[in-house]
Amino acid sequence: MTFALDPRLAADTLPAGHLPLCEVRLMNDARFPWLVLVPRRAGARELHDLCPADRALLMEEATAASAMLAARGAFKVNVGALGNIVAQLHVHVVARMPDDAAWPGPVWGSGTRQPYQGNAGQSLADTLSQALGTQEHP
Amino acid sequence: MTFALDPRLAADTLPAGHLPLCEVRLMNDARFPWLVLVPRRAGARELHDLCPADRALLMEEATAASAMLAARGAFKVNVGALGNIVAQLHVHVVARMPDDAAWPGPVWGSGTRQPYQGNAGQSLADTLSQALGTQEHP
Repeated sequence: MTFALDPRLAADTLPAGHLPLCEVRLMNDARFPWLVLVPRRAGARELHDLCPADRALLMEEATAASAMLAARGAFKVNVGALGNIVAQLHVHVVARMPDDAAWPGPVWGSGTRQPYQGNAGQSLADTLSQALGTQEHP
Repeated sequence: MTFALDPRLAADTLPAGHLPLCEVRLMNDARFPWLVLVPRRAGARELHDLCPADRALLMEEATAASAMLAARGAFKVNVGALGNIVAQLHVHVVARMPDDAAWPGPVWGSGTRQPYQGNAGQSLADTLSQALGTQEHP
């Protein structure tokens, strides 16, 4: 079984580069700077489906995304692996501000996604991808 | 600065043992089997406030909690570090079922916490603590 990005994740997000373990995606929701990291491991659904080395790498990649968003001014970063709707293992890394649309609640299940206009989403995805030092190819 | 459990976390949870890095607590909410792991590191607020070795340990302890809840029948485990309300770094590890009170939404901010009755909470905390192989003393 080879890895393929879940179609729903693909539809809801924009490409933001590749890290050694994860595909990086930007949630297409202008309300929050919101990255999604997807380990390229076919069939993984829970953290315990990864081997320890992959888990350590996932932690370091999520932390790098978190630190990058904090350096860009996030008041708090929310990190979560839920998977109730899309089973494929993916980790949300979301920049939160005290005046954002969901504060202090979680972003998941909050209101309605507001897609970026024009190329604003892909432009931000490219900026964050560069700030994160992602690779062009996996 | 020495580590002390945030008073709000302490008030909302029951003790469920100690792991090498984390205090383990059971959220006092009978709607969900819900553990909270709190690294004993004073001042930590974000993942990037921990050193890499502590982060790797946190990942392994969260994964052990996740695997334990899955082995006990969780349909999905939700893992998240939010910290919008309580700043002290803490990781939620929550057993989810398709018929639970918040499914498929997140547990955070969903409805009203329903404290366990009598000693049911501490009894479950002790059972999960034992299943997780926690230590009596940090």
